[in-house]
Amino acid sequence: MKKKIELHLAHWVFVDDVKFFGKGRLQLLELIQETGSISKAAKEMGMSYKKAWRMVDELNTFGKSPYVIASKGGIHGGGTEVTETGKQVMDAYHRLGEKLQTIIEQEKNLLDLI
Amino acid sequence: MKKKIELHLAHWVFVDDVKFFGKGRLQLLELIQETGSISKAAKEMGMSYKKAWRMVDELNTFGKSPYVIASKGGIHGGGTEVTETGKQVMDAYHRLGEKLQTIIEQEKNLLDLI
Repeated sequence: MKKKIELHLAHWVFVDDVKFFGKGRLQLLELIQETGSISKAAKEMGMSYKKAWRMVDELNTFGKSPYVIASKGGIHGGGTEVTETGKQVMDAYHRLGEKLQTIIEQEKNLLDLI
Repeated sequence: MKKKIELHLAHWVFVDDVKFFGKGRLQLLELIQETGSISKAAKEMGMSYKKAWRMVDELNTFGKSPYVIASKGGIHGGGTEVTETGKQVMDAYHRLGEKLQTIIEQEKNLLDLI
Protein backbone atom coordinates (compact mmCIF):
# COMPACT_ATOMS: atom_id res chain seq x y z
CA MET A 1 0.00 0.00 0.00
CA LYS A 2 1.37 3.37 -0.99
CA LYS A 3 2.21 5.58 1.97
CA LYS A 4 0.67 9.03 2.25
CA ILE A 5 3.51 11.47 2.88
CA GLU A 6 2.79 15.11 3.69
CA LEU A 7 4.54 18.24 4.89
CA HIS A 8 2.81 20.17 7.68
CA LEU A 9 3.80 23.47 9.17
CA ALA A 10 2.82 25.80 11.93
CA HIS A 11 3.79 29.36 12.81
CA TRP A 12 3.26 31.37 15.96
CA VAL A 13 3.88 34.86 17.28
CA PHE A 14 5.64 34.86 20.64
CA VAL A 15 5.55 37.86 22.97
CA ASP A 16 8.26 37.88 25.64
CA ASP A 17 8.91 34.18 25.02
CA VAL A 18 5.26 33.21 25.54
CA LYS A 19 3.09 31.88 22.70
CA PHE A 20 0.74 34.72 21.85
CA PHE A 21 -0.91 33.99 18.50
CA GLY A 22 -1.28 30.90 16.35
CA LYS A 23 -3.84 28.90 14.41
CA GLY A 24 -6.12 28.38 17.41
CA ARG A 25 -6.45 32.05 18.24
CA LEU A 26 -6.90 32.92 14.58
CA GLN A 27 -9.84 30.52 14.50
CA LEU A 28 -11.22 31.93 17.75
CA LEU A 29 -11.18 35.48 16.33
CA GLU A 30 -12.76 34.27 13.07
CA LEU A 31 -15.59 32.65 15.00
CA ILE A 32 -16.08 35.72 17.21
CA GLN A 33 -16.34 37.81 14.04
CA GLU A 34 -18.83 35.35 12.59
CA THR A 35 -21.03 34.82 15.65
CA GLY A 36 -20.57 38.15 17.48
CA SER A 37 -20.12 36.19 20.69
CA ILE A 38 -17.23 34.69 22.66
CA SER A 39 -19.44 31.96 24.10
CA LYS A 40 -20.76 30.88 20.70
CA ALA A 41 -17.21 30.91 19.31
CA ALA A 42 -16.00 28.83 22.27
CA LYS A 43 -18.82 26.34 21.76
CA GLU A 44 -18.01 25.90 18.07
CA MET A 45 -14.41 25.16 19.01
CA GLY A 46 -15.43 22.69 21.72
CA MET A 47 -13.68 24.90 24.26
CA SER A 48 -14.93 26.16 27.61
CA TYR A 49 -16.11 29.77 27.76
CA LYS A 50 -13.57 30.37 30.50
CA LYS A 51 -10.69 29.27 28.32
CA ALA A 52 -11.88 31.33 25.34
CA TRP A 53 -12.34 34.36 27.57
CA ARG A 54 -8.84 33.94 28.98
CA MET A 55 -7.44 33.82 25.44
CA VAL A 56 -9.30 36.98 24.46
CA ASP A 57 -8.10 38.65 27.64
CA GLU A 58 -4.48 37.78 26.79
CA LEU A 59 -4.86 39.12 23.26
CA ASN A 60 -6.37 42.33 24.61
CA THR A 61 -3.72 42.72 27.33
CA PHE A 62 -0.53 41.91 25.42
CA GLY A 63 -1.44 43.18 21.96
CA LYS A 64 -0.74 46.82 21.15
CA SER A 65 -4.45 47.58 21.54
CA PRO A 66 -7.50 45.37 22.20
CA TYR A 67 -8.32 42.75 19.56
CA VAL A 68 -11.88 42.13 20.76
CA ILE A 69 -14.38 44.60 22.20
CA ALA A 70 -17.99 44.74 23.25
CA SER A 71 -19.98 46.62 20.62
CA LYS A 72 -23.03 48.59 21.60
CA GLY A 73 -26.27 49.25 19.78
CA GLY A 74 -26.92 48.33 16.16
CA ILE A 75 -29.85 46.26 15.04
CA HIS A 76 -28.72 43.32 17.12
CA GLY A 77 -28.52 45.42 20.28
CA GLY A 78 -24.78 44.95 20.82
CA GLY A 79 -22.44 42.00 20.89
CA THR A 80 -18.77 41.27 20.65
CA GLU A 81 -16.58 42.24 17.73
CA VAL A 82 -13.04 42.06 16.47
CA THR A 83 -11.28 45.44 16.27
CA GLU A 84 -9.26 46.83 13.35
CA THR A 85 -6.05 45.83 15.17
CA GLY A 86 -7.38 42.31 15.57
CA LYS A 87 -8.39 42.12 11.92
CA GLN A 88 -4.99 43.34 10.75
CA VAL A 89 -3.21 40.71 12.82
CA MET A 90 -5.57 38.00 11.51
CA ASP A 91 -4.90 39.07 7.92
CA ALA A 92 -1.14 39.28 8.34
CA TYR A 93 -0.95 35.93 10.13
CA HIS A 94 -3.09 34.32 7.45
CA ARG A 95 -1.08 35.83 4.57
CA LEU A 96 2.16 34.64 6.14
CA GLY A 97 0.69 31.12 6.36
CA GLU A 98 -0.12 31.25 2.64
CA LYS A 99 3.42 32.33 1.76
CA LEU A 100 4.92 29.55 3.86
CA GLN A 101 2.54 27.10 2.20
CA THR A 102 3.84 28.22 -1.21
CA ILE A 103 7.37 27.26 -0.17
CA ILE A 104 6.09 23.91 1.06
CA GLU A 105 4.47 23.29 -2.33
CA GLN A 106 7.71 24.19 -4.13
CA GLU A 107 9.72 21.85 -1.93
CA LYS A 108 7.54 18.79 -2.21
CA ASN A 109 10.44 16.88 -3.74
CA LEU A 110 11.68 16.43 -0.17
CA LEU A 111 8.87 13.92 0.17
CA ASP A 112 10.41 11.61 -2.43
CA LEU A 113 13.41 11.15 -0.16
CA ILE A 114 11.46 10.02 2.89
CA MET B 1 9.42 48.04 28.97
CA LYS B 2 9.55 47.14 25.30
CA LYS B 3 8.04 43.79 24.47
CA LYS B 4 10.08 41.16 22.64
CA ILE B 5 7.98 39.97 19.70
CA GLU B 6 9.14 37.04 17.58
CA LEU B 7 7.88 34.71 14.88
CA HIS B 8 8.53 31.01 15.38
CA LEU B 9 7.85 28.18 13.02
CA ALA B 10 7.96 24.43 12.86
CA HIS B 11 7.61 21.93 10.06
CA TRP B 12 7.10 18.18 10.09
CA VAL B 13 6.84 15.29 7.70
CA PHE B 14 3.77 13.13 8.32
CA VAL B 15 3.52 9.56 7.06
CA ASP B 16 -0.01 8.18 6.93
CA ASP B 17 -1.20 10.98 9.22
CA VAL B 18 1.41 10.23 11.90
CA LYS B 19 4.23 12.66 12.69
CA PHE B 20 7.34 11.04 11.23
CA PHE B 21 10.11 13.64 11.11
CA GLY B 22 10.67 17.01 12.74
CA LYS B 23 13.23 19.05 14.64
CA GLY B 24 13.63 16.45 17.42
CA ARG B 25 14.44 13.58 15.08
CA LEU B 26 16.75 15.79 13.05
CA GLN B 27 18.68 16.51 16.24
CA LEU B 28 18.70 12.84 17.20
CA LEU B 29 20.20 11.88 13.82
CA GLU B 30 22.75 14.70 14.08
CA LEU B 31 23.85 13.44 17.48
CA ILE B 32 24.01 9.82 16.31
CA GLN B 33 26.23 11.00 13.45
CA GLU B 34 28.40 12.94 15.87
CA THR B 35 28.70 10.34 18.63
CA GLY B 36 28.31 7.08 16.64
CA SER B 37 25.92 5.87 19.33
CA ILE B 38 22.19 5.92 19.98
CA SER B 39 22.71 5.86 23.75
CA LYS B 40 25.13 8.81 23.73
CA ALA B 41 22.78 10.74 21.45
CA ALA B 42 19.85 9.98 23.77
CA LYS B 43 21.86 11.12 26.78
CA GLU B 44 22.76 14.43 25.16
CA MET B 45 19.09 15.05 24.46
CA GLY B 46 18.06 14.13 28.00
CA MET B 47 15.97 11.30 26.59
CA SER B 48 15.79 7.64 27.63
CA TYR B 49 17.63 5.13 25.46
CA LYS B 50 14.35 3.30 25.01
CA LYS B 51 12.65 6.36 23.56
CA ALA B 52 15.56 7.16 21.24
CA TRP B 53 15.68 3.56 20.09
CA ARG B 54 11.95 3.58 19.37
CA MET B 55 12.37 6.74 17.28
CA VAL B 56 15.21 5.18 15.29
CA ASP B 57 13.13 2.05 14.81
CA GLU B 58 10.24 4.12 13.43
CA LEU B 59 12.55 5.98 11.06
CA ASN B 60 13.99 2.67 9.87
CA THR B 61 10.59 1.04 9.51
CA PHE B 62 8.57 3.77 7.82
CA GLY B 63 11.28 5.49 5.77
CA LYS B 64 11.96 4.15 2.28
CA SER B 65 15.12 2.49 3.58
CA PRO B 66 16.85 2.50 7.02
CA TYR B 67 18.11 5.86 8.29
CA VAL B 68 20.42 4.41 10.95
CA ILE B 69 22.50 1.23 10.81
CA ALA B 70 25.12 -0.56 12.85
CA SER B 71 28.49 -0.09 11.19
CA LYS B 72 31.14 -2.76 11.52
CA GLY B 73 34.89 -2.52 11.77
CA GLY B 74 36.89 0.66 11.21
CA ILE B 75 39.37 1.98 13.74
CA HIS B 76 36.68 2.31 16.41
CA GLY B 77 35.57 -1.31 15.95
CA GLY B 78 32.06 -0.48 14.84
CA GLY B 79 29.27 1.74 16.05
CA THR B 80 26.10 3.27 14.76
CA GLU B 81 25.84 5.50 11.74
CA VAL B 82 23.38 7.48 9.68
CA THR B 83 22.84 6.09 6.16
CA GLU B 84 22.83 8.05 2.90
CA THR B 85 19.01 8.02 2.95
CA GLY B 86 19.06 9.44 6.46
CA LYS B 87 21.57 12.12 5.49
CA GLN B 88 19.54 13.15 2.46
CA VAL B 89 16.41 13.53 4.56
CA MET B 90 18.34 15.54 7.18
CA ASP B 91 19.71 17.86 4.49
CA ALA B 92 16.37 18.34 2.76
CA TYR B 93 14.53 18.98 6.04
CA HIS B 94 17.21 21.45 7.11
CA ARG B 95 17.22 23.29 3.76
CA LEU B 96 13.43 23.58 3.86
CA GLY B 97 13.71 25.10 7.34
CA GLU B 98 16.14 27.69 6.01
CA LYS B 99 13.83 28.63 3.15
CA LEU B 100 10.88 29.00 5.49
CA GLN B 101 13.05 31.11 7.78
CA THR B 102 13.84 33.42 4.85
CA ILE B 103 10.12 34.07 4.38
CA ILE B 104 9.78 34.75 8.10
CA GLU B 105 12.59 37.33 7.87
CA GLN B 106 10.90 39.01 4.89
CA GLU B 107 7.58 39.18 6.70
CA LYS B 108 8.80 40.65 9.95
CA ASN B 109 6.56 43.67 9.41
CA LEU B 110 3.74 41.50 10.74
CA LEU B 111 5.33 41.98 14.14
CA ASP B 112 4.65 45.73 14.08
CA LEU B 113 0.94 44.99 14.02
CA ILE B 114 0.88 42.79 17.11
